[in-house]
Amino acid sequence: MALIVCKFGGSSVSDAASIQRVADRIVATKAGGNDVVAVVSAMGDTTDELVDLAQEISPDPPSREMDILLTAGERISMALLAIAIDARGVNAQAFTGQQAGVITDTSHGNARIIDVSPSRIQRTLGAGNVAIVAGFQGVTAHTNDVTTLGRGGSDTTAVALAAALGASVCEIYTDVDGVFTADPRIVPTARRIDRMTSEEMLELAANGAKILHLRAVEYARRYGVTLHVRSSFSDRTGTLVVPPDSTEEDTMEAPIISGVAHDPSQAKVTVVGIPDVPGMAARLFEVVAGAGVNVDMIVQNVSASATGLTDISFTLPASDVAAAHTALDQLRSEIAITDVRYNDQIGKLSLIGAGMRSHPGVSAKLFGALRDAGVNIEMISTSEIRISVVTAAADLDVAVRAVHTAFDLDAAEVEAVVYGGTGR
Amino acid sequence: MALIVCKFGGSSVSDAASIQRVADRIVATKAGGNDVVAVVSAMGDTTDELVDLAQEISPDPPSREMDILLTAGERISMALLAIAIDARGVNAQAFTGQQAGVITDTSHGNARIIDVSPSRIQRTLGAGNVAIVAGFQGVTAHTNDVTTLGRGGSDTTAVALAAALGASVCEIYTDVDGVFTADPRIVPTARRIDRMTSEEMLELAANGAKILHLRAVEYARRYGVTLHVRSSFSDRTGTLVVPPDSTEEDTMEAPIISGVAHDPSQAKVTVVGIPDVPGMAARLFEVVAGAGVNVDMIVQNVSASATGLTDISFTLPASDVAAAHTALDQLRSEIAITDVRYNDQIGKLSLIGAGMRSHPGVSAKLFGALRDAGVNIEMISTSEIRISVVTAAADLDVAVRAVHTAFDLDAAEVEAVVYGGTGR
Repeated sequence: MALIVCKFGGSSVSDAASIQRVADRIVATKAGGNDVVAVVSAMGDTTDELVDLAQEISPDPPSREMDILLTAGERISMALLAIAIDARGVNAQAFTGQQAGVITDTSHGNARIIDVSPSRIQRTLGAGNVAIVAGFQGVTAHTNDVTTLGRGGSDTTAVALAAALGASVCEIYTDVDGVFTADPRIVPTARRIDRMTSEEMLELAANGAKILHLRAVEYARRYGVTLHVRSSFSDRTGTLVVPPDSTEEDTMEAPIISGVAHDPSQAKVTVVGIPDVPGMAARLFEVVAGAGVNVDMIVQNVSASATGLTDISFTLPASDVAAAHTALDQLRSEIAITDVRYNDQIGKLSLIGAGMRSHPGVSAKLFGALRDAGVNIEMISTSEIRISVVTAAADLDVAVRAVHTAFDLDAAEVEAVVYGGTGR
Repeated sequence: MALIVCKFGGSSVSDAASIQRVADRIVATKAGGNDVVAVVSAMGDTTDELVDLAQEISPDPPSREMDILLTAGERISMALLAIAIDARGVNAQAFTGQQAGVITDTSHGNARIIDVSPSRIQRTLGAGNVAIVAGFQGVTAHTNDVTTLGRGGSDTTAVALAAALGASVCEIYTDVDGVFTADPRIVPTARRIDRMTSEEMLELAANGAKILHLRAVEYARRYGVTLHVRSSFSDRTGTLVVPPDSTEEDTMEAPIISGVAHDPSQAKVTVVGIPDVPGMAARLFEVVAGAGVNVDMIVQNVSASATGLTDISFTLPASDVAAAHTALDQLRSEIAITDVRYNDQIGKLSLIGAGMRSHPGVSAKLFGALRDAGVNIEMISTSEIRISVVTAAADLDVAVRAVHTAFDLDAAEVEAVVYGGTGR
């Protein structure tokens, strides 16, 4: 008997009818001879509505109380799902994050899981029941306070439970059929990927693909959990995301490139004329990190003149620009800097594939495709299985399509796909 | 420094604006030098909406999961109230029933409190914080499952916490100014009662006054908690409901009659021609109780003829008539009964007052007032501090007004009052 952990996001449980559909699916999985643990997010926009309500009351609500507030959403969806399954003659029990043994640190609003002790889940499974677990929430070890896991929290709950319970697979139900070679809204010929490594998925998630949250993929990779990303609106097989070890052989046969990610939400900062002496870059990024800014790509130009000055560019989420601005204004009182330029009209394209390791020439082909499409490259950065370039925002879609075609990723036939948010 | 437990029902926290108003009140109480524990119900109609949602999914939802669902409501209101208080510069922490140490039996949907261990509440009060506690909910001792306390549950939570914490007073905020000598919707001249015993309040609650729930008053009486029933829409002093012991002296001075309760939701069953032999009444009410029917008043006529038959009448909630009907139909296959008559067009009037004990002649005055008003009495029952009569439903309002006037309860001046439900 296999144990399957499945996770349903907010869009999969947005109303009574969709909860009934999810219940049908779980009952079918159970009837197929599997033990089932289902992790659910809050219904539809519940969480956003609760946030709005809190904002109406206070512009700066305390994080401990916000977490109590937000966890009400999963309480509703998990109870309703258990009720729906029970109505189909299958016993189901719903558990809060605390009851499921999800222990976290005390960072309210963005807590990290530090332990999972799912003894109650194991007991209820042993009794032949389906276990429904509230996603996105946990409890602190000593004070028994409710915490939430931040964006993507329900995915993380599901993966953490799958790891703790030794599940065969962690199914992530979403509103698309799986992971695609590119965003189908930009590239209509994008193909569903059958199988990929969690490293590749990590790079996709880190570089703009919104289908799975980075933390959940990291967790899956670290604990060797196989993910199955699939649609809650169809029975089709989706995308298997397998831990690296289990695919040592497979990767020999793997396609060189899995997909093209894009991220239009980045901005670029160029620090012009900073003294080209040791320790300057360190000081610069110390100040930027101190302001809570997540820096992504960094490029330093060679000092081109005899001025002893150089330029450093870096990318960051556009939402962090204001914080970076404040931090850099302060830095200018400490270090003589000629100018700081901000540009939020950029986009990032990333080409990802585990096969890249053993295949030289991928960069050259990528740059060639962009040149042929008339797209100028502003910055370049690479990892072992990824090449990213920054382009003008206006060129990003054209660039994605050109690269997708150049690497033979286009489907022979265009599938009808719906692409949207993935809840949390 | 006094410790005040206060309870705010659903109508007091129905939206962001009313939550802000409740926060103002709590902050003022705190600023007055008191420790404050506030118990809250779910916002407005939240609970009813959640019940509807569950009914949409299943006609017969399992009670354990229903309790998880329903407790989401208080989670939202308690967090929002804590956020609102925090925004006023006063530290507040919200606690679930479990965190507040409210331990119950396992009767999901109608659980009884078996222990209150409010060490976390005491710690947070000790740190100078306001404690916000979710009403209506608890947790089972061994399995850590969430339970709800049934109708009136938030009142009971407040009283139980007040008892466990040794609070000076338990303030019950509602949408009227206190307990009145009669329902102001029926008797416009009804007066607010300044002070009464919890025994009198028990009789009022048990006989149709909806202002406080029976269980909460019972709990207050048993544990010697003083209640202050007051309006969340004004600063006026309301009605003090004091435990019997504390008022031994006071009752000497107390008015003979506190008020007139009425209950239009009763029905009457008359079992005609049941054998007048020992054990018949016992068998009859054994069968009725076995059907889960709450019998209130019972009258047996003297056997008037030589037939060896007698008639027994009893009252019950109109909602229990169907169950009684089924039970009595079965009884007729066992015992020869001439006829069973059902009448749901009745009303019950109850005159309540602790002073009644030492003042004879109250019944005669009551019956005289009803006679003068042309109201026929169908049944009579009495306790030490109460006289109840059953009238035709159509006569009930006239009867209440006549009795109110006869016992000099009318106010000199009519106050403007709003009278409605009291949440739960």
